[in-house]
Amino acid sequence: MKISIIKIGGNVIDFPEKLDEFLKLFSKFPGHKILVHGGGIMASRFGESLGVMPEMVDGRRITDKDTLDVVTMVYAGLINKQIVAKLQALKVNSIGMTGADGNLIRSIKRPVKDIDYGFVGDIKEVNTKLIDHLLKGDLLPVVNAITHDQKGQLLNTNADSIASALATSLAADHQVNLYFCFNKSGVLIDEKNENSIIPLINEDIYQELKKENVIHSGMIPKLDNAFEALMKGVNHVWIGKAENLLLATKGKLSGTTIERHRYDLY
Amino acid sequence: MKISIIKIGGNVIDFPEKLDEFLKLFSKFPGHKILVHGGGIMASRFGESLGVMPEMVDGRRITDKDTLDVVTMVYAGLINKQIVAKLQALKVNSIGMTGADGNLIRSIKRPVKDIDYGFVGDIKEVNTKLIDHLLKGDLLPVVNAITHDQKGQLLNTNADSIASALATSLAADHQVNLYFCFNKSGVLIDEKNENSIIPLINEDIYQELKKENVIHSGMIPKLDNAFEALMKGVNHVWIGKAENLLLATKGKLSGTTIERHRYDLY
Repeated sequence: MKISIIKIGGNVIDFPEKLDEFLKLFSKFPGHKILVHGGGIMASRFGESLGVMPEMVDGRRITDKDTLDVVTMVYAGLINKQIVAKLQALKVNSIGMTGADGNLIRSIKRPVKDIDYGFVGDIKEVNTKLIDHLLKGDLLPVVNAITHDQKGQLLNTNADSIASALATSLAADHQVNLYFCFNKSGVLIDEKNENSIIPLINEDIYQELKKENVIHSGMIPKLDNAFEALMKGVNHVWIGKAENLLLATKGKLSGTTIERHRYDLY
Repeated sequence: MKISIIKIGGNVIDFPEKLDEFLKLFSKFPGHKILVHGGGIMASRFGESLGVMPEMVDGRRITDKDTLDVVTMVYAGLINKQIVAKLQALKVNSIGMTGADGNLIRSIKRPVKDIDYGFVGDIKEVNTKLIDHLLKGDLLPVVNAITHDQKGQLLNTNADSIASALATSLAADHQVNLYFCFNKSGVLIDEKNENSIIPLINEDIYQELKKENVIHSGMIPKLDNAFEALMKGVNHVWIGKAENLLLATKGKLSGTTIERHRYDLY
């Protein structure tokens, strides 16, 4: 079957009106789909109210026990259930999940090398049978950034990694497309001009753009991740703004589509 | 099929060791089962840390917007996901849910008469097809006390009512037993003596015990609820301590079993 995996981040979640607008678009997105979300600034705000301050080591965020409790409450409780309730109002039969629910995503606590990241999970396995069972029941999974180690420990996990892991695991049996919504209109030729979107990137174009220094810094890991997903069997990866998501399914210019080899997308 | 619905409250949830011990017992409980939980004092504690004080009107707790956010975070986030992760460690494939997830429980905001209870839900409908689908997939639902109105609003709902509604709705197609774990060993002849358990109550015995004032005050609504569930087709209702739950399935004296007519339980 054809499955779309759509990831949204703080730039949608943190603004109730933008979230409502996005969910309306999402409800019209055709075919089987899975929504993946992180937490945005809401977790930090609640953490601070509770006196749980973000702990940083060498500029990296550490998930201690209290921070894990806060992100579990905010991601798996508040944000996830508000999204599910809003989708239900749009007649989309969504079901909210962490990686612990139905053993959806098993991860391991990141091994300590130079830095102890605390209760952070690196993904090991996705229960694709569960997804198949839910989709067969016309349920739409809304997956948040909490996973578990199958030994009773919840773990804070990168939401982009969750979207990629779901996509690559499901790609073994399904035709999977992966959509990353972020704060830019796509990969841009001029990062100050939102109209300078590069509509299509494949491996050859990517190498060329890196050489010419059009693609640099923060965009490189994003694209490396995209190509890794393609290597593992994902059909195509899209990067763009949440509000342009539906255009992406209609073959209209709306963001950057990343493919392995093909030049002709539509 | 045979389904057991087991409800636990604050006297288990609030004590990590008691919760672990209970979940071990629960994992051995035979047959299809659903766990229902409330929140205990954890929600009040987090609420107070966030400066959200429990609002009371005429001795009744009011769920305002901030309180709803807190209970959603604590019930659906922290407690529910910790229980699910612990059950996964016990090789029980649990899936945590609010009433919004998969449209499991639709409720309506309690109408304002003398008191405006705020965002409190009165249950209207249970999606038994969803439960059937999950049980068929060998998933064990862990249901918390948040429901929704299918118009996008989450609602705080009594966990006992959720357990009863699940039981009576599923009783149409299944053989359902309902277990309420609370802080007493059962219905007691002498409320100060935990060994004075009345092992079996039916309608005749109940009327007799009320007349003799053996059953009074807080126990009457509990038993009225139990008889209502029996009237609606539930097989039997059990009331007792969480640690004695497994004895209940073995026909050993462990709490009070409530049945409509039959004297011979086992």
